[in-house]
Amino acid sequence: MTVFNRRASHFEPVFTLSAGPAGATPDTLAALSRPVLYHYDPVFLELYADTVELLRSAFGTRQAPVILHGEAVLGLEAAAASLIRRDDVVLSLVSGVYGKGYGWWARRYAREVIEVEVPYDSAVPADSVRKALEQRSDVSVVSVVHCETPSGTMNDLDAIGPVVAEHGALLIVNAVSSFGGAACDFVAWDADLVVVGPQKCLGGPAGLSLLHVSDAAWEHMEANPDAPRASVLSILDWKDAHPADRPFPFTPSVSDVYALHACLGQYLAEGPAAVQRRHQSAARSVRAGAEALGLELWAADRSICSDTVTAVKVPPSLDERELSARARAESGVMLSGGQGELAGRVVQIGHMGPSAYPLSPVIALTALGRALRGFGVKADVGAAVEAALAALDGPEGAGRD
Amino acid sequence: MTVFNRRASHFEPVFTLSAGPAGATPDTLAALSRPVLYHYDPVFLELYADTVELLRSAFGTRQAPVILHGEAVLGLEAAAASLIRRDDVVLSLVSGVYGKGYGWWARRYAREVIEVEVPYDSAVPADSVRKALEQRSDVSVVSVVHCETPSGTMNDLDAIGPVVAEHGALLIVNAVSSFGGAACDFVAWDADLVVVGPQKCLGGPAGLSLLHVSDAAWEHMEANPDAPRASVLSILDWKDAHPADRPFPFTPSVSDVYALHACLGQYLAEGPAAVQRRHQSAARSVRAGAEALGLELWAADRSICSDTVTAVKVPPSLDERELSARARAESGVMLSGGQGELAGRVVQIGHMGPSAYPLSPVIALTALGRALRGFGVKADVGAAVEAALAALDGPEGAGRD
Amino acid sequence: MTVFNRRASHFEPVFTLSAGPAGATPDTLAALSRPVLYHYDPVFLELYADTVELLRSAFGTRQAPVILHGEAVLGLEAAAASLIRRDDVVLSLVSGVYGKGYGWWARRYAREVIEVEVPYDSAVPADSVRKALEQRSDVSVVSVVHCETPSGTMNDLDAIGPVVAEHGALLIVNAVSSFGGAACDFVAWDADLVVVGPQKCLGGPAGLSLLHVSDAAWEHMEANPDAPRASVLSILDWKDAHPADRPFPFTPSVSDVYALHACLGQYLAEGPAAVQRRHQSAARSVRAGAEALGLELWAADRSICSDTVTAVKVPPSLDERELSARARAESGVMLSGGQGELAGRVVQIGHMGPSAYPLSPVIALTALGRALRGFGVKADVGAAVEAALAALDGPEGAGRD
Amino acid sequence: MTVFNRRASHFEPVFTLSAGPAGATPDTLAALSRPVLYHYDPVFLELYADTVELLRSAFGTRQAPVILHGEAVLGLEAAAASLIRRDDVVLSLVSGVYGKGYGWWARRYAREVIEVEVPYDSAVPADSVRKALEQRSDVSVVSVVHCETPSGTMNDLDAIGPVVAEHGALLIVNAVSSFGGAACDFVAWDADLVVVGPQKCLGGPAGLSLLHVSDAAWEHMEANPDAPRASVLSILDWKDAHPADRPFPFTPSVSDVYALHACLGQYLAEGPAAVQRRHQSAARSVRAGAEALGLELWAADRSICSDTVTAVKVPPSLDERELSARARAESGVMLSGGQGELAGRVVQIGHMGPSAYPLSPVIALTALGRALRGFGVKADVGAAVEAALAALDGPEGAGRD
Repeated sequence: MTVFNRRASHFEPVFTLSAGPAGATPDTLAALSRPVLYHYDPVFLELYADTVELLRSAFGTRQAPVILHGEAVLGLEAAAASLIRRDDVVLSLVSGVYGKGYGWWARRYAREVIEVEVPYDSAVPADSVRKALEQRSDVSVVSVVHCETPSGTMNDLDAIGPVVAEHGALLIVNAVSSFGGAACDFVAWDADLVVVGPQKCLGGPAGLSLLHVSDAAWEHMEANPDAPRASVLSILDWKDAHPADRPFPFTPSVSDVYALHACLGQYLAEGPAAVQRRHQSAARSVRAGAEALGLELWAADRSICSDTVTAVKVPPSLDERELSARARAESGVMLSGGQGELAGRVVQIGHMGPSAYPLSPVIALTALGRALRGFGVKADVGAAVEAALAALDGPEGAGRD
Repeated sequence: MTVFNRRASHFEPVFTLSAGPAGATPDTLAALSRPVLYHYDPVFLELYADTVELLRSAFGTRQAPVILHGEAVLGLEAAAASLIRRDDVVLSLVSGVYGKGYGWWARRYAREVIEVEVPYDSAVPADSVRKALEQRSDVSVVSVVHCETPSGTMNDLDAIGPVVAEHGALLIVNAVSSFGGAACDFVAWDADLVVVGPQKCLGGPAGLSLLHVSDAAWEHMEANPDAPRASVLSILDWKDAHPADRPFPFTPSVSDVYALHACLGQYLAEGPAAVQRRHQSAARSVRAGAEALGLELWAADRSICSDTVTAVKVPPSLDERELSARARAESGVMLSGGQGELAGRVVQIGHMGPSAYPLSPVIALTALGRALRGFGVKADVGAAVEAALAALDGPEGAGRD
Repeated sequence: MTVFNRRASHFEPVFTLSAGPAGATPDTLAALSRPVLYHYDPVFLELYADTVELLRSAFGTRQAPVILHGEAVLGLEAAAASLIRRDDVVLSLVSGVYGKGYGWWARRYAREVIEVEVPYDSAVPADSVRKALEQRSDVSVVSVVHCETPSGTMNDLDAIGPVVAEHGALLIVNAVSSFGGAACDFVAWDADLVVVGPQKCLGGPAGLSLLHVSDAAWEHMEANPDAPRASVLSILDWKDAHPADRPFPFTPSVSDVYALHACLGQYLAEGPAAVQRRHQSAARSVRAGAEALGLELWAADRSICSDTVTAVKVPPSLDERELSARARAESGVMLSGGQGELAGRVVQIGHMGPSAYPLSPVIALTALGRALRGFGVKADVGAAVEAALAALDGPEGAGRD
Repeated sequence: MTVFNRRASHFEPVFTLSAGPAGATPDTLAALSRPVLYHYDPVFLELYADTVELLRSAFGTRQAPVILHGEAVLGLEAAAASLIRRDDVVLSLVSGVYGKGYGWWARRYAREVIEVEVPYDSAVPADSVRKALEQRSDVSVVSVVHCETPSGTMNDLDAIGPVVAEHGALLIVNAVSSFGGAACDFVAWDADLVVVGPQKCLGGPAGLSLLHVSDAAWEHMEANPDAPRASVLSILDWKDAHPADRPFPFTPSVSDVYALHACLGQYLAEGPAAVQRRHQSAARSVRAGAEALGLELWAADRSICSDTVTAVKVPPSLDERELSARARAESGVMLSGGQGELAGRVVQIGHMGPSAYPLSPVIALTALGRALRGFGVKADVGAAVEAALAALDGPEGAGRD
């Protein structure tokens, strides 16, 4: 394949420090290259069942999770299509592009969708959720994004979850870019349908959705006459598809399952607590360095910054695409640009799974600073690196600053 | 990973001679293990555009094809959802499990679905199509399966295509398990929406659908107010998503695209004519050997047998699952069982892409014969191997027997 | 890389059933593709020490074995150069090309080399060794080849070892193509310097030599003023080079060590007894099939046939190279030709490590029979396959026929 | 495989910025994982011949080069053993550990070895060579190291080569760590035997030696009655072993040859001039940054610094091993320590092949500075990064500062 030498030398690595896909470890890449087996081969059946068990263990749940065979957007759409009944009233919590978008999906299926919306550099306060639920006792489903990737911000599920639970509504959580990097306690949140993307903090393949489904969510779906069946959008079709004696609804993505098995094994071997410390450390370092570089964080408040991705404001004089392209071309560092309303206004630095390591902040900040200078913007790279190192070597238990 | 030693020694290879996934070549597996890039990385954007161009070249079409990021079942469902309008009358041609099933999807979207159905060991005659269309001038869409995988039979698209074209209906073709092994002339067929699965004859990954969409099909879809948008089921969302300066609707399956690029390159390097001869030769050999082994082909007529997969009847005294399991356990050969109505009645021997090679018939027949004997059924393995070799070394241009 | 499509389609696999290299499993190939580390990287140092420990466990010895960083021929030459002192009298046991050749190396270093030689289709009787040693009490070193690869024959080390031990001579054993397939009890043999090649029955890389060195051999080498030092031929340089706090004499072959670690792990997981049964079964099957095909085994006596490789006589009318080339070209099966005196007279069918699996005999015999017929030689492939299966499914404990 | 998570998370990459092995690109790693073929498989024979031709092209020579199947130390020892006759007088040029060591090998074979030695932070002036040759007209062989890896210094072969040629002596060059990074003109140097290590600037496997042999060198070797034959030390055995119809002296390292083929292809695709600019740029950057960090270059004069590896002095208060270990443990960056006389006194930063990329200097300097501080040594990392960037973005044609 001549792919990797088109834009630069084969000998120059690419540092993928984007908002995801976040790369993959050598072990995960090796798993992807395993011989492709027939999906009813006994070895694959056993591997699949084992993968679901590893995932259950990573999720920390009692129920067997569901693997859907398409990128996380499939999981999110399938969740809306399957769970939201035409008599449901959905409260959509909106603090960014993905939260806003989920409401559109919800509208396809719900009787009514109401919103609690905050500016996209903010998080939805648990109190606002409580108030909204008090006002509308008929809300039966609440949807929320844990980490708003384009904004690099987190909604506090530890606070919101119990409020929703108390109200008795079902809770749909988009944890695509948080799970595997930030603390996620599906049980404590009382979350009913959580969608995770393996290509983010787990360093897995892009073609799968990982779903936690609570007992209540299964019941609600099973009682939903419009829940997709015989469809790629069906979650019900895949319920209990993982035991070796059960048929698959259709051919699962064999190689992607190998990769998922591999990256879950690595995640569990490192241990969630260690993984979270690694992400916290990289996040602290990037944030401190970005400010020292002369940039502003997008988030209005540092306390809501995600430990998995950081959004920084692009100086108004610059074109975000040209800035990212320059960092990629001259330093081999791939960052992400904004999406939706944030397009052109922010650059995102990923520190997710395989991109959350001690020197990733220094690499990102050096490339970014060098590119800024290339466009005539002052950027103190030396100070940024020093600040990044200081934060990296800072007090470990300090958490989110 | 400890996967491969659970059921047998690491040192014993598995011969995947199933109805697909059909395995992958070393080059394709190597492509799968390439570093996972961000999907807007310039190298990936160029690779993606290049992959679409390779696919166009393989399809032999003028239009840029569409890659959907889910297994072929997604492409099939999306085709129905996108193309079939609520005012369409669909003629569903049924000669097997997949043809029957497609009618169910069509019914979700069409005003009416009528069927021409033949027994599942047969093919739909072009004349029956003509008659059906004469009777129902309001048929606006025809759906047909090129190769009925469970039955190992082919519908003659070279004859059916022009009949449909003459009528002026749109033609949806399921070429999932034929393209890349059997001759497929989308232009001569005047096919409007063809769905191909890369994991069959191309030896590619399981997580993609490859679509040819004609100009007329694009128009019909665009005029369809119910065609999915902002959905994994949307074909329209992915129209022209491949040029490097266009955004993707959502994250494509990066590693699967690498693999697709690799296997298309290999397919084109070998050349479609050579590829088809390789499949014809393996198919002739399997059919001759199976009969010499004492088994009956499922197909009522040898002239409709597929060159990509062969279905043979399981002796009534035997359990098909136990038979396949035995071939896998004692010989390392993985065959497929029937599906739907054919479940338990046939075993399928794949000779698709990486499993269509000179000795694959001998390997399949030896394993099958050995397993039959294990259950006390007489099977002349020696005669089968001799017949397989004779057919293999037979006249090359002989085509389908 | 365009390598695999030069002689045939990418989609046609190559069955390597040669006398070695014998291929490698997916796990071993995956290990080869791991990132290349600096040889003093702590992870590599630990891996290296761990590999030596796995090898010690596979050898079943008390002493830490030695890895030399060159193909087995380096180990064999180094053994002669290091162990044989200029005052040594060497008894070289000769039953084939490799045994004969070892005498030439011995002559470079020894005071005198005497031989016990038998025809190359035979094995050296323990009694002949005893007599030779009785006649020459000054023999201080005995060299012997366990499996004569070109002949497919074994010398009975279980009988010869104790005779040499009783005499008090040091015993050098070439176990390159037997270890990992046939039973090797270095302790019971009282072997002093055994050389093993990882690319044969272990399915490892071609670039290493694996050495067992007894305490007596270490003493003899250390007392040898001519033993190489600061040389690739030095065994002494590598003594105790494996602990993590010791320097390497020079850069070890990093990727090869990854592969060795992987294949030793697989060997130990399967277990030596199971491995040997797998080789015995394949060997029985090949031998029975070859005779049914109409060919003669090269070995004068079936009781001395190796379980790792079988040599069959090429019909006198045929050119061995053309025969092998034809089997490779038309069936994708790679066999080996003779070497030295046996060149042109035999074809070798390997059943070593990754090439010793249930259907490998059928694959080899079919390709061979088909090629024979291509040259107008009668070959009953059907009978060969039947005989191969009968032997495969024969009594497991039957051992070497 | 659980290897890579013993010392750190799977998710933390290792940056190998040592003096070699220097890592490998994804394409080269993919080549290493190709199926292991029998060495007489026609595909391998063609690949081998093709590899020799790629190497000839990279060497820019008329003669077919020789691949020896052991690490570069084998090539160096074999060169001495094969080329140096017992009537030769060897002039050994010594400016470092490897130059000194080569004299020891030369002494094994030569009538006499004389030296021109300079301090190990210096280079041998061409004038000194001229004078030495004037004094000793009987010098028949001159040996020199192009890049003294431990010192990070270069001898000026462009100047020395013609002096030796004028004298009429044969010239042995150790270009192990320069070829593929620094300009090497074997023809202009009139070099007779050059040894190159693929694991350095080519980013290849560690288990091969690559040799250029001039016509005069072949003649000298062939006339040498003591030149090794039937030995791993023999160069003559491998003369013309590469054409597909010639036998190999012994089994070549199949996987390593795959990797060599791949990395030569990448080297030639990038082009020697571009490769050298990449190395010059990284080298300038490291040197500027190291000084800004507060460290001293080992080389007495910046004009003799290698573009492939930089040696910096370790502050006297520090233990070099502890310093390197700390950089590895806390930042994932693997540097090298000194060897021989330089042990404990220098740290080497590699910028060779896959480790010579725009940000490698920043990565190395940050890790080194962070580790220095960990031991209480002041290190201005910010200044180092700024200086590294300034040098990186400096005038491209500036060459060696």
